[in-house]
Amino acid sequence: MPQATKELLADILEQVRPLIGKGKVANYIPALACIPNDKLAIAIYTNDGEVIKAGDADEAFSVQSISKVLSLTLAMQIYDPEEIWSRVGKEPSGQAFNSLIQLEVEQGIPRNPFINAGAIVVADMLQTRLSAPRHRLLEFARQLSGDTHIVYDKIVAASEMQHSDRNAAIAYLMRSFGNFDNEVIPVLNNYFHACALKMSCVDLAKTFSYLANQGQSVQTKKQIVTPNQTKRLNALMATCGLYNGAGEFAFKVGMPGKSGVGGGIVAVIPGEMSITVWSPELDQTGNSLAGTAALELLSTELGRSIF
Amino acid sequence: MPQATKELLADILEQVRPLIGKGKVANYIPALACIPNDKLAIAIYTNDGEVIKAGDADEAFSVQSISKVLSLTLAMQIYDPEEIWSRVGKEPSGQAFNSLIQLEVEQGIPRNPFINAGAIVVADMLQTRLSAPRHRLLEFARQLSGDTHIVYDKIVAASEMQHSDRNAAIAYLMRSFGNFDNEVIPVLNNYFHACALKMSCVDLAKTFSYLANQGQSVQTKKQIVTPNQTKRLNALMATCGLYNGAGEFAFKVGMPGKSGVGGGIVAVIPGEMSITVWSPELDQTGNSLAGTAALELLSTELGRSIF
Amino acid sequence: MPQATKELLADILEQVRPLIGKGKVANYIPALACIPNDKLAIAIYTNDGEVIKAGDADEAFSVQSISKVLSLTLAMQIYDPEEIWSRVGKEPSGQAFNSLIQLEVEQGIPRNPFINAGAIVVADMLQTRLSAPRHRLLEFARQLSGDTHIVYDKIVAASEMQHSDRNAAIAYLMRSFGNFDNEVIPVLNNYFHACALKMSCVDLAKTFSYLANQGQSVQTKKQIVTPNQTKRLNALMATCGLYNGAGEFAFKVGMPGKSGVGGGIVAVIPGEMSITVWSPELDQTGNSLAGTAALELLSTELGRSIF
Amino acid sequence: MPQATKELLADILEQVRPLIGKGKVANYIPALACIPNDKLAIAIYTNDGEVIKAGDADEAFSVQSISKVLSLTLAMQIYDPEEIWSRVGKEPSGQAFNSLIQLEVEQGIPRNPFINAGAIVVADMLQTRLSAPRHRLLEFARQLSGDTHIVYDKIVAASEMQHSDRNAAIAYLMRSFGNFDNEVIPVLNNYFHACALKMSCVDLAKTFSYLANQGQSVQTKKQIVTPNQTKRLNALMATCGLYNGAGEFAFKVGMPGKSGVGGGIVAVIPGEMSITVWSPELDQTGNSLAGTAALELLSTELGRSIF
Repeated sequence: MPQATKELLADILEQVRPLIGKGKVANYIPALACIPNDKLAIAIYTNDGEVIKAGDADEAFSVQSISKVLSLTLAMQIYDPEEIWSRVGKEPSGQAFNSLIQLEVEQGIPRNPFINAGAIVVADMLQTRLSAPRHRLLEFARQLSGDTHIVYDKIVAASEMQHSDRNAAIAYLMRSFGNFDNEVIPVLNNYFHACALKMSCVDLAKTFSYLANQGQSVQTKKQIVTPNQTKRLNALMATCGLYNGAGEFAFKVGMPGKSGVGGGIVAVIPGEMSITVWSPELDQTGNSLAGTAALELLSTELGRSIF
Repeated sequence: MPQATKELLADILEQVRPLIGKGKVANYIPALACIPNDKLAIAIYTNDGEVIKAGDADEAFSVQSISKVLSLTLAMQIYDPEEIWSRVGKEPSGQAFNSLIQLEVEQGIPRNPFINAGAIVVADMLQTRLSAPRHRLLEFARQLSGDTHIVYDKIVAASEMQHSDRNAAIAYLMRSFGNFDNEVIPVLNNYFHACALKMSCVDLAKTFSYLANQGQSVQTKKQIVTPNQTKRLNALMATCGLYNGAGEFAFKVGMPGKSGVGGGIVAVIPGEMSITVWSPELDQTGNSLAGTAALELLSTELGRSIF
Repeated sequence: MPQATKELLADILEQVRPLIGKGKVANYIPALACIPNDKLAIAIYTNDGEVIKAGDADEAFSVQSISKVLSLTLAMQIYDPEEIWSRVGKEPSGQAFNSLIQLEVEQGIPRNPFINAGAIVVADMLQTRLSAPRHRLLEFARQLSGDTHIVYDKIVAASEMQHSDRNAAIAYLMRSFGNFDNEVIPVLNNYFHACALKMSCVDLAKTFSYLANQGQSVQTKKQIVTPNQTKRLNALMATCGLYNGAGEFAFKVGMPGKSGVGGGIVAVIPGEMSITVWSPELDQTGNSLAGTAALELLSTELGRSIF
Repeated sequence: MPQATKELLADILEQVRPLIGKGKVANYIPALACIPNDKLAIAIYTNDGEVIKAGDADEAFSVQSISKVLSLTLAMQIYDPEEIWSRVGKEPSGQAFNSLIQLEVEQGIPRNPFINAGAIVVADMLQTRLSAPRHRLLEFARQLSGDTHIVYDKIVAASEMQHSDRNAAIAYLMRSFGNFDNEVIPVLNNYFHACALKMSCVDLAKTFSYLANQGQSVQTKKQIVTPNQTKRLNALMATCGLYNGAGEFAFKVGMPGKSGVGGGIVAVIPGEMSITVWSPELDQTGNSLAGTAALELLSTELGRSIF
């Protein structure tokens, strides 16, 4: 069976580089709009603890929605399943990531924890049980990646907060249905800080190694979640991890994954490796254009997918 | 690694049998409503060609929407990918299987080939290119299963046709958007015949062995679709195969699968086996209640899932 | 109080003529698309039986949805109110005239009789109780207008029938909810014939004189509907008569009215007169652009509106 | 023509009194839920300045959404039409009064000023141009009614503010579309105070006399809005004034009207009189059950409606 090598990764990046210019960098906040569009990176962290990388794989970028997986993992550590899944669903939404329509029809229960509404519910849950949720999440990312220099990008977080009206509407709508327990503004502030985590492809691949390794972090050897919880996190990523492009991603790439509008995508081959790609330009569904293409090539080259 | 045995399957059936009485047999047509609710079956067909089974595994039942996988496979054999995927999407719908709402908003392009609208488009495509699509599909099922006694249940097909108004509305709506080429009634008639295929769990497990075996039928040794097409069919089943319960199914069972309102579910462990369960009572999302539970147990017992 | 005169009407037409070129002739069927866009007409029929007119007021055009008022009037003559209003509502739709979305959400009960779905229900009711509904409607129009030369435009009716997919979808959807009793195709055929009535502004003003005269036709002196039914027809026109532009029309013109995509609008000043305008170019809500403007001017000049 | 008398009004109240017990008092805030359900009142203010009344017509109640007409009138005095109508529409919504669905689809532009979203936009406009909008509105109500004892019910206003999540969601959603200029909380606070105005049927009939009198207050003789603006306010009430029951109200009553969940309804016979009814129990569309019935009887007895 073919193996991932540094050369293979470099080759894949060159094959997808011509896509740069055909997508669109997220521009809803200035702090994201100014990222150079030609950043390109891939990093693999194998279950043996090996890092294989190419391109700008050590440069930190805004993880954005990738943090939703980390927040949910934290929530799974401190809440019983029924406490979580009575407040947020597990089904694909078939709608834009920030739509309120389905949320109103389904009476304030978000479809899944990877659309904004669902992640805001998770942030509300963390707020309730953690004394310092923002600090806790940062520590969690630092421990899992082994990189103690990870920080929140304060400019991005502040910029998100200034453009938070849509998410505030989502939070208040859920509160009107009784599915939001804390004050809206502090919870949103934590939520935006999570989105503003700055991490590199290598950091992220290491951080999410537990998803490829039955819940045990390859980096720290600690059991982060149970094997069963791991399976469920991967199932959620496979069906809901790429907004309204999850089906296309499963179809092309065939790995559980989670994307962010910063242009990063984390993907997992269970039992083998975690992978992160980064290219800031997005396709029409809000997922990294070249990043998706790189993962598709990797899947084909390695002959690996979950299907 | 634990192996599937006849005893394991029998044990699983006994564990889920108490669920009978807690679901609801499909009753939108009389021919389905009269099926005894205590039928219970499971069959596995391994990539080595071994059949393992328990319960009513040789009794034929109405495959209903499971046929959508077979029809799509036929279409993939005679159409180029872009011809198919320009007319039907690959994303979960987040809506009821027979809703027209999303179809109108998205201008006549169904979300995926496993909701009614999408399957009707596939039926329209088969009508265009095949001289006798109904006969062809029956032959296909007979060859893949090796069971030459498979027939269409004429009573079910006629009963569906008498209750076809909703599907006729779907077909006419797509035609109004230019996404339907033939006369509505004959296409619906073929579509309902496909749903009215009568096959047993053993038949179905054998039929779909190509999905577990890189596109090659274990039964006939013929290459039905390419490995890449196989991966894509499995990806579609994983994200869209259980109506509005695909996320829950991935979460619990963790296998690509396709259900029918007759109470059957086909599931696949790529590289290892195809599985069929049957129990007529359905849960709220229209999927077999005891069948899903049986697959969940099997996944846990074998320690197998794609995640 | 100012009175309508031939000179006033001619003057109004000259004031609105510059709007020609700024709207769009209906082009969903060829037979409508070929109508010269510079036709312009207005006719008033007073409760004293006087005709006042200007422009092409004696030229027949396709009445289209204006016929929905006539069909509903016929239905009110042969059905009890509860028989009608249990099958169709009385509320504005807030949606496009041919949308299926609300119809599915509200389980096959159309919002009102002046959107397509509602008019198709009315056509279904006429089909059930009348032996020759198409003939009956034509006779009704001839009697009310006193013009025995009124005919169905067979080319328009045939053309509508060839582009009937959307309306067929609507009818089948209602049938799936049990709100449609006859075969779809014959009912649609009658519905399209009603739309294909060819009448002039003078014909239409005379035909609808009963709406301005407590239900009694000024032309025939016959009581068509009761005063109370008349009030209700006018209320329906005021809230639902101009598709998704009813509010704007009430705001600007302030009369109960009903428009058709042929560019005609019938309006009523209760107790005084019925009015018809015609100009084929439509605004974005599908109502005659210059026709609406002419009615607005007339309302201002006469100092008359229901508000 | 029959005239309104004290006896007629008393008789009408007795006829509708049996409806008490068949509706439901608004209970979304405790301060409204505790109103006795058997309050019943009607008051007429003729254009001659005569007050005719029956029942609890001098008892003040929470005007709730009736205040939306007053706020809009204020906005029409200080804004140009295009400034208002570019931010809020004039069409019936066909949706619940507090739905966010249409608001999202139509990109933050509310359908009309009488649903919550539209009234909140109007409150936002008043906040921008008035130094003390809350004080101004109270003065306006006092002047128009001639009753200097009118106050805001502070308990109701505070209670609304505690249950404001849904309206906060609406405001933030509009702000995310750029259709909201001020801070959300202070605007909502003013909006809820307007809803918490306490006025009697007599107060309200006098206050809205300008709508029956070409814009001139019968009480103060001042021109509040132009005749043309008056016509437009009445048109808006006729098409949008009774939430999702506007069509039914036009059908039955045939007068422009505006209801509130406090059980009040203001209605107008242009050129003749303004009318207010009050009965706290609401029908399914949120409009006073006995109040609507009383207006229907009055319309029939007087032989008056705009149709």
